Order: sequence, then structure tokens, then C-alpha cells
Amino acid sequence: MQAITLSGNELQFQADRQAPDLQTGEVFVDISLAGICETDLQLIQGYMGFSGVLGHEFVGVARSGQFADQRVVGEINCSCHQCDTCQAGRPTHCPNRTVIGIDRHDGAFATTLAVPERNLHRVPDQISDRQAVFAEPLAAAFEITEQVTVTPNDRVAVLGDGRLALMCSQVLANCSGNVTVFGKHAAKLRRFTERGVSTEALQGTLPSNVPANAFDLVVDCTGSTTGLPMALQMVRPRGTVIMKTTVAGQHEQSLAAIVIDEINLLGSRCGPFDQALDAIAKGHINLDDLITDSFALSDYQAAFEAAKHADSFKVIFEIA
Amino acid sequence: MQAITLSGNELQFQADRQAPDLQTGEVFVDISLAGICETDLQLIQGYMGFSGVLGHEFVGVARSGQFADQRVVGEINCSCHQCDTCQAGRPTHCPNRTVIGIDRHDGAFATTLAVPERNLHRVPDQISDRQAVFAEPLAAAFEITEQVTVTPNDRVAVLGDGRLALMCSQVLANCSGNVTVFGKHAAKLRRFTERGVSTEALQGTLPSNVPANAFDLVVDCTGSTTGLPMALQMVRPRGTVIMKTTVAGQHEQSLAAIVIDEINLLGSRCGPFDQALDAIAKGHINLDDLITDSFALSDYQAAFEAAKHADSFKVIFEIA
Ligand SMILES: [Zn+2]
Ligand SMILES: [Zn+2]
Repeated sequence: MQAITLSGNELQFQADRQAPDLQTGEVFVDISLAGICETDLQLIQGYMGFSGVLGHEFVGVARSGQFADQRVVGEINCSCHQCDTCQAGRPTHCPNRTVIGIDRHDGAFATTLAVPERNLHRVPDQISDRQAVFAEPLAAAFEITEQVTVTPNDRVAVLGDGRLALMCSQVLANCSGNVTVFGKHAAKLRRFTERGVSTEALQGTLPSNVPANAFDLVVDCTGSTTGLPMALQMVRPRGTVIMKTTVAGQHEQSLAAIVIDEINLLGSRCGPFDQALDAIAKGHINLDDLITDSFALSDYQAAFEAAKHADSFKVIFEIA
Repeated sequence: MQAITLSGNELQFQADRQAPDLQTGEVFVDISLAGICETDLQLIQGYMGFSGVLGHEFVGVARSGQFADQRVVGEINCSCHQCDTCQAGRPTHCPNRTVIGIDRHDGAFATTLAVPERNLHRVPDQISDRQAVFAEPLAAAFEITEQVTVTPNDRVAVLGDGRLALMCSQVLANCSGNVTVFGKHAAKLRRFTERGVSTEALQGTLPSNVPANAFDLVVDCTGSTTGLPMALQMVRPRGTVIMKTTVAGQHEQSLAAIVIDEINLLGSRCGPFDQALDAIAKGHINLDDLITDSFALSDYQAAFEAAKHADSFKVIFEIA
């Protein structure tokens, strides 16, 4: 099979890599499209020390099992489903898990992926492949509404104007009429306003031009250490700050505001695929015109360059 | 009246200071006992830029109003009760508030305190003055159970072996049979074991000898930047870390674990006095032998020295 592999910091296109071994409970999926995510760019920089086939956002066709010959998307955590954590209903935190394309499990930048059958979700007919490839990041956005209740009058701020911010802001705008996105890039903010989400341009990295204590909920999707101090300033006392992105490097800041204002700081990661697919099928999430470039696997260098470019939004591999 | 005042970094005993003016809704309280708190030591170091009469932990006798001639303790936040924050039920976060002995309101290291009548709580007859002086820090401990539900099998860790840790661990041990206190000072840990609370001695500042991911709830009462990284390591995925103490200085650490493990980090400050008084009256909290020294106001220098000493626990002023 064809695959893009990472070893150390070295990316490679392999035109004739051996297909992965099927582990117990796994089926093969023939990948149609796979998306490049910020995490992939971090993995290439050495995050997690990953080696193997990259890629964890995908849509494809299952070769066997209950979804044989049907289009599927898939959850990325391959959990043991037997340990205390799994039995307690937290399989995405299983200490024995591998993670597709991220942690000791080959990923989806390949013609063939081996994936636990129980991780798969059938893609409804009314959803295109180019929509379905957003199921994973959209599910992560729906994790927010699994964790906190957002009501119509809640004042919500989303920090960041990238892909995850667009998913989160649409999910939140379906719950509250008061969602504002704060971002630095006019070209990216346009995608939010086109979807009816209010935006504010940020100048510089300091929160000088954002209102203090004015939001019930602030979701940090910046992927930067500048996000948290801004969020802590913007949220009201006893409000909630959701950290949606990991940040490379250390935070160096006072956290006294968390105590003084009794702020609830909540980390948020992978979420429910069923809700994501349902929302796409019902037209509640607008995924039009978000794919700015598509490449063949063999064109991987151009693809990763495009994904790093400020004007790009989502870059995908067209595999089959 | 007599009072201990702070101006800049300078402490002073005033033998004949003018009594404070009564603001609208305030009554005079003749102070019997007042406790020295970690916050007082920080205020002397310049925290909050406070100037005026120090002291916010007190028991005394109200001179007028509904509690005239009765023993009272009092909440420290003097809120406007009219702004949106107050009307939303969060008066301890009122942006217009002053705070007794901490922020623009004279405090209780004095023979006479002016305090909003609505802040006062009558001390039940079965509670001694030497117990009642702990009402404020004990109320802060009860804020935890206002914020999170603690059930009998929850695995709870309290970090720190000081005064607030002792209050928090007793409140939590009344909810769960699995509370362990982690502290550095054998002499202080003895006070916990005497009360039936399990303890573990910490060597050094690194969490090398504490179990990872083993606790549903971790309460950081260390007052040190070493507390949070230890707490984030100890808590299970989707568990809760309560930050109970503000820390002087900046945290310099990765917060990636909060996202990856979807941890709930929750700041916690002032709490319900009624629950604190009720628990003391019912004998649910053991406050015996915690006062290690008591001084007259004029002996303030010796008092603050004693409060800083590693062997001291609670130092109080005996005023009337
Ligand atoms: Zn497991
Ligand atoms: Zn107010």
C-alpha cells in the first residue's frame, strides 16, 4: 500500500509499504480522504515521539465486519475496554490505549488503515466524503456540550480563528445566541461571519482590547500560550474556561485569578462522533468551502507546506 | 481603640486609634479573638497593596442590630448587593466589594470592627470563642462541597499540612472514607492523624513518591507553585483539582495534562459560614489544640513572628 510515514523527524512517502497487521477486533478500511490536522504538524516536530503512518482524520470504506462495503469514519482511541478506566465509562482515557496516527498505532495517510471495528461509525448517505472527513474535529467540538450545559443567553467567547475554532463556534452557536469569535486573521474570520458567527479582530497578543469578565464561557482554541491569560481575563467570576488545544511549551503566568474568581478551567479532547454525524446530516453545521487544497499521498511535501500556510484552512489527501 | 495597622510594608500598633466610621448597614463588633492567617502574612509582604487595620478572622460581640450583645462571626466580603454579579447570586465576587482586613476595609486586629450587619452570624452557645475564631477558614473549606459532590468512595487527596489543609481534610473526611493528606512536616501531620485522617509524608518538592492518576479529587492547599504539577499528576483523567490557595509568583509549567486528561481545575475561595458553624456545633469538626500561641495586640511583633514559625499552627490575638 501507499503510506506517509514518520520516523524521528523524517517524513517519507512509501509507495509499497506492507499493509498493517489486523489486531483483535480490527477491520481494514480503504481510505478515501484524510485531513491534515494541527496535531500532525506537531507530531512532525517531535510531539509524542510518534513513528509510523501518520493521519487520524479520515473517511473510507470498510472491507469487512458490520459496515462491510459501507462508508465509515472512526474514533481514534483504541482502548482495551477492560481496565477500570474503560469500565468506568472513560475509554478515551484508557491507560492501555493506542491512538490512530498519534500514539503507537498506524494512521490514515495510507491506502489502507487497520482500525477497531467498534471505533467505526457509518456515514449517512446525505453526507459527502468532503464533509465526513471533518467528523473527528467536529466530534471534538461536541465534547464541549458533553461537559458543560450551554444555554441560549450564555455569553460565549471562542479564542482562535482556525479549524477547531470554526467547529467549536458552530456547535456553540447552535446552543447560544451570544457567541463571539476572537481571532487575528481577517481572511480566516471571514469564514465565521459567512456562517453567521460574530467576530472580533485581535490586535497583537495582549488582551487589551477584549472585554474583562464579560463571558460566561470562554473556549481557548488558540493553540498558543497567549490564549489562557486572555481567557482568564475575559471570563466572569465562577465562569468556565475550556482548554481545547494543547500548547507546545510551558505556560509562565500567575494562576491566582482562577482562585480569586473561582474559575472552572476544563480540559476538553475527543468527543462523540454520533452527534457530529447527526449534526452534519441535519445541516446544522456548515462545512462548505473549508477544504482549501487537496493532494495525492505522493505529494506529501507540498501538502504539509500548504497546511502550514496562513491562508490555508483544511488540507486533505485524496487517496481513493 | 487599639489596632494593628499596615501602611506600605510597615506594621504599627496604635494604642489610641479613632474607631472606624460606620457605613450604611454596618454595626460595631467588639472583638474578642482574632486569628492570624497566611493571607495576613502575604498582605504584610505587599499583596493587594492594603493599608489600614489588618485581620479578617474574628469572633466578637455585636453592639447593636439584630445580634446586639450576642457573640458573632462575620463574612469578609462587603458587597453592594445591587450589581448584576450580586443579583446573579455571586455576592462574594461583587466587583464593587471591599474585603475586611484585605481590601479597602479596616479589619479585626482591633478592639472594634465596623462590619455590615448582614455579614454577621450568631455563634451558637455550645461553640467556644476559641472554636468560633476558625469559622472563616472552615467556611472556606466548606466551599469545596458547595462546588463539587464528594461521595463516600471518592479517592481524595489534600496537598499541604497547614491550617487550611486541616479544615479541608476534615470537611472532606466527613464526605468520603478515602481522604489522604500529603505534607512535608511530621509535626503538622500528627494533627491530622489524631483526627483520624490518613497522611503521607512528602520528601522534597517533587511528586516522585505520590501515586499517579489515583485520585478522583485533589485539593491543593500548599500555597506553593509545587502544588499544581503534583495535583495534575495525581488526579485521574476527568478528575477534579481544586486550587484552594493563591500562590505568590508565576506558575511555569506545561498545562497539557489538563487537556489530554480532560481535568477539571476549579478555583475555590470563601464559603458558607452557616455550614461551618453548624458542623462545629454538632462536633463534626475537631478544633481542639490548634491554637499554638495567643498574644495581646500590643505584642504584634511577637505574634507575627510566631505565626511564621514552622511549629506554630494557629496564632491568635486575645483582645477582650
Ligand atoms: Zn482500558
Ligand atoms: Zn455587587
